[in-house]
Amino acid sequence: MALIETPYLLFLGDAPDSLAAKVAQGIKDWRPEFAVGQFRMDGCKADMGLTDMTLDEAVAAGCKTLVIGVANRGGVISAAWKEVLIKALEAGMDLASGLHNLLREEADLVAAAEKHGRQLHDVRIPSVKYPIANGEKRRGKRMLAVGTDCSVGKMYTALCVEKEMRERGMKASFRATGQTGILITGDGVPLDAVIADFMAGSIEYLTPDNDDDHWDLIEGQGSLFHVSYSGVTMALIHGGQPDALVICHEPTRAHMRGLPGYQLPSIQAVADLALQLAQVANSDCKVVGVSVNTKDMPEAEAKAYLAKVEAEMGLPATDPFRFGAGPLVDALEALDAVAAE
Amino acid sequence: MALIETPYLLFLGDAPDSLAAKVAQGIKDWRPEFAVGQFRMDGCKADMGLTDMTLDEAVAAGCKTLVIGVANRGGVISAAWKEVLIKALEAGMDLASGLHNLLREEADLVAAAEKHGRQLHDVRIPSVKYPIANGEKRRGKRMLAVGTDCSVGKMYTALCVEKEMRERGMKASFRATGQTGILITGDGVPLDAVIADFMAGSIEYLTPDNDDDHWDLIEGQGSLFHVSYSGVTMALIHGGQPDALVICHEPTRAHMRGLPGYQLPSIQAVADLALQLAQVANSDCKVVGVSVNTKDMPEAEAKAYLAKVEAEMGLPATDPFRFGAGPLVDALEALDAVAAE
Repeated sequence: MALIETPYLLFLGDAPDSLAAKVAQGIKDWRPEFAVGQFRMDGCKADMGLTDMTLDEAVAAGCKTLVIGVANRGGVISAAWKEVLIKALEAGMDLASGLHNLLREEADLVAAAEKHGRQLHDVRIPSVKYPIANGEKRRGKRMLAVGTDCSVGKMYTALCVEKEMRERGMKASFRATGQTGILITGDGVPLDAVIADFMAGSIEYLTPDNDDDHWDLIEGQGSLFHVSYSGVTMALIHGGQPDALVICHEPTRAHMRGLPGYQLPSIQAVADLALQLAQVANSDCKVVGVSVNTKDMPEAEAKAYLAKVEAEMGLPATDPFRFGAGPLVDALEALDAVAAE
Repeated sequence: MALIETPYLLFLGDAPDSLAAKVAQGIKDWRPEFAVGQFRMDGCKADMGLTDMTLDEAVAAGCKTLVIGVANRGGVISAAWKEVLIKALEAGMDLASGLHNLLREEADLVAAAEKHGRQLHDVRIPSVKYPIANGEKRRGKRMLAVGTDCSVGKMYTALCVEKEMRERGMKASFRATGQTGILITGDGVPLDAVIADFMAGSIEYLTPDNDDDHWDLIEGQGSLFHVSYSGVTMALIHGGQPDALVICHEPTRAHMRGLPGYQLPSIQAVADLALQLAQVANSDCKVVGVSVNTKDMPEAEAKAYLAKVEAEMGLPATDPFRFGAGPLVDALEALDAVAAE
């Protein structure tokens, strides 16, 4: 993935509501310094609370890239959008998108980008030729978010830990492995689109040698217990060589996402299995805590649930987005202290 | 993968020795009915013991496809080969190849194929748009070969079991997941080249609903303990929904293939882990036996080793290529009998 130039103008298009603008919201929440302004078309119902800018105002304010911050139905680039996107290229911005409908598949966008010397970033597909994993030990520390299921908050967990670490003055880098994470940070590996043989190698590439006291906070994907995507999770565990695992869980699921016949595993079962697998690549790996997405629980219920998980697992448990990532970072710092002894 | 039309003319090119003609050897060993003749160029040192044929003789003998049965250095299609390949298209045969240098990347081959209405089969890359796995239970029985390491005999194990089952009058289909297996049988999934999100789905596609007493014998790939490729193995376990696992081992390895820092796991460790993972998709899955590649052991040593494995594992152990797959098929038949009770 070629680095996407920052800062961004967030394109909200004709989003029917704020939920559709999940990518823009993520950028604003996690990289506010990248979110210089927003561009809304007629009828747009989403609002990030940023300054509305014309394309020329955005360029004058320093924006390097227009990011499509909205997922429309079907993932298609409409004619109405096209007009704005071409003008953005003319005005001097690159484009970045995670849509299924690739920018590079649109002849008029390709022509305009070429004419004006701009880049089209389709983060849905890899632009790097990744190596095959070599399994060699790398310097620096790595944490991997591992889920009981898909979409349980692995990206938010890694981002929350990064934020808390940076606030404590620690060296920390969120490492994106999905489209939204890549658009938020401007870099990463779109792992679900990588060729099978190169999956683990792409994660080695994403998390290279680093300072001994630097933490890579790797966004997880899928679940070891999700039969559609478990191979992707496995590649993260072996390619990432994590020193620490955080188990991520969403307690209100009736079954595995998209698989009505499959029950969710227990947090303990995921912790045991993930640790066993991780120790193939790094015998010192530890499970350090549990991250619970409690957004569908009232606060008292959420806190009671977290206390129960802490007692059962003997590990810190938090909803890092709601209550802060402090307990997880405490546990990661404690690992550092043990290793330094 | 579009089905490759059989039977074949095996192209041995200018192979420096018989080892280079592994694909041709596999076809001759496992699908002798497909191996009508061989084509050798000047200086070819490989010989499958088949009738040497000109291209016209091969067509007259019924050959539908010229299969490149040899891996040359660098996987490149040389100018000397080209001449033969273009004449084969003119003579009315399709071409099939597992080389890295794709047939479809060669403009003159593409032009000749188009002119003569012939197909170019590059089995190294998928030609099917595979679905995302849905995890639904399928009818029929499936066995998966699971390895302690890469290249320990998983393909040969599945092929040996297929042969023994067919000799016993059982319904059985070898299911190829690698280039050599696809060229041998004319069909399959080149799993290492499938996009991450579709790996498990490609294996569901490869092993669809079937008769209740039909066995799919699925070629394994990689190893759960091989950090470069473990994600591919995982996708086979969850996409294949195996009823039975056969653990494959090669006892003379000093370390994992290509990973000097990684020791081989024990057969027991692989059996325990693979079974735990397989039971996510099929709670009735069993480990039924062990297949040992003893080619580097004298016969007495091999037999002693197999006896030791049987005693330690409490499971039948054989080298199916050397001593027959009988014990493995006995164990699979016993599974059928238990299921029918």
